[in-house]
Amino acid sequence: MKKLLFSKAVIAGVGLMGGSLGLAMKKQGLAREVVGLVRRVKTIREAKARGCIDSGTLSVPRAVRDADLVILAGPVSSTLPLLKAMLPHLHAGCLVTDLGSTKVKLLGHIAGLLPPKPGFDFISSHPMAGSEKAGVLAARQDLYLGSLCMLIKTSGVNMAALAPLKALWRSVGCRKIKVVTPQEHDRWTAAVSHLPHAVAVGLVNLIVDLAARDTGLMEIASTGFLDTTRIAGGLPAMWQDILLNNREEICTVLVRFKKKLSRLEGFLRNREETSLRQELERAYAFRQGMEGKKNGRKKG
Amino acid sequence: MKKLLFSKAVIAGVGLMGGSLGLAMKKQGLAREVVGLVRRVKTIREAKARGCIDSGTLSVPRAVRDADLVILAGPVSSTLPLLKAMLPHLHAGCLVTDLGSTKVKLLGHIAGLLPPKPGFDFISSHPMAGSEKAGVLAARQDLYLGSLCMLIKTSGVNMAALAPLKALWRSVGCRKIKVVTPQEHDRWTAAVSHLPHAVAVGLVNLIVDLAARDTGLMEIASTGFLDTTRIAGGLPAMWQDILLNNREEICTVLVRFKKKLSRLEGFLRNREETSLRQELERAYAFRQGMEGKKNGRKKG
Repeated sequence: MKKLLFSKAVIAGVGLMGGSLGLAMKKQGLAREVVGLVRRVKTIREAKARGCIDSGTLSVPRAVRDADLVILAGPVSSTLPLLKAMLPHLHAGCLVTDLGSTKVKLLGHIAGLLPPKPGFDFISSHPMAGSEKAGVLAARQDLYLGSLCMLIKTSGVNMAALAPLKALWRSVGCRKIKVVTPQEHDRWTAAVSHLPHAVAVGLVNLIVDLAARDTGLMEIASTGFLDTTRIAGGLPAMWQDILLNNREEICTVLVRFKKKLSRLEGFLRNREETSLRQELERAYAFRQGMEGKKNGRKKG
Repeated sequence: MKKLLFSKAVIAGVGLMGGSLGLAMKKQGLAREVVGLVRRVKTIREAKARGCIDSGTLSVPRAVRDADLVILAGPVSSTLPLLKAMLPHLHAGCLVTDLGSTKVKLLGHIAGLLPPKPGFDFISSHPMAGSEKAGVLAARQDLYLGSLCMLIKTSGVNMAALAPLKALWRSVGCRKIKVVTPQEHDRWTAAVSHLPHAVAVGLVNLIVDLAARDTGLMEIASTGFLDTTRIAGGLPAMWQDILLNNREEICTVLVRFKKKLSRLEGFLRNREETSLRQELERAYAFRQGMEGKKNGRKKG
């Protein structure tokens, strides 16, 4: 059953996230027209060929003219300049969102940028879906299927505009929409997304160091190592943005994580079997409880 | 094409590893008879039903009588007592191996246990395959497909006995056999297997701590967190054995890993963009290079 939510939807940045959203929107018939705003002509060709957009342009005014939905789907660092360039051209009543991975700093800057009565609605989104793969060629219609999407509540948000944004995310497959503050968003993602990324990067780079002297070492790496470090294959430019933008929260959990490792190290050095066992049991029980959560999710 | 390598093969401990080996051996017709040596009658029933063994017994003498292959596939801590119980009953010319995850301590103890001319051959194996799942019900015929198997070379090893052991592992699907010293084995597995396990356990337990106060946090965990911490779902009893048996090597890499994390933390605190970027690029490049290694592997 198709349901039309928007007339002209603009996706600014047609990579993995934007491209997958376009694919899902077109499949569900959520907009009369899906337009890609990109930086290279080649991307228009690729995105059209994959069915992510109906048409594409490199021109900001041409893209956002008459749009009632604008999705800023590029890297966090591109969001602010792009929104600034769009400001004079945004249609009254347009709904604007971004998919950025960090929020506190970004939304602070955006609040400073917008006029008191902008005539359009800006509400930030963060669907917790993705992959270490990047680019429009990795776009998948089911990327958002079963995922959770956070919508960010700030003092400037028009709560009435939440409904169509919730409907959009539900329609592309999100199993849950959670309205959170920018602070909650950044604190939570620091723990379950940014810290694991930093850890995976550190683990890979340690192995690179060790393998330089101990050449047999890498040959024996198996699925455990590969899974644990999969996310370290994420795009460096994107992750540099994310880690720097959320550095305070990340450092806070990084310090706590190092303490957890030191505890484990102590148990090993002192052969504290019972404490070690409790630590392993605790993680095991939690992971068992999480297995259910995985069902219905697609793997990136 | 079936090739008979052994007459009577005994698998002592028919869980994930032993059961999967039995399944693959029977499928390939590598032994006239595959006998399971277990601790519970129930396991015999389950292992036979799954096609992992032809018959089973709880009796050590009955199991190893006339066996020309004995595989010690239980937890590391069971290997030594079991081998000791088998000693008086082992057939001349029998090939004995174990699948233990740590080797230096175990092989030291075994060297002390064996008579100067035991009349049989003991060569330790470690196929780098597995899963966080456990037990005979998780056994899979293709568990070893595409994996690497280490065989452990000690001063006591009869090099002529390596050939049938290599043939066994090749026949059940291993893509590579690597002959290594016990020290190499433990140093390498500490880095690519045991450290990642400790890290995953620490990460899960930190999240448990944080989620106790910040209840929304766990809801947003996505595939990245799930993959990074998958191995923390491994059996606590097994991992307690492994971590304690290889604690010196693990502590060495754990200390180095914490330094890597502190470096990253420093880059974030001081906004050292270039250094952070280099760190991310280095991990990214390495992971890209590893993607090829994953092909042909089955995921646990």
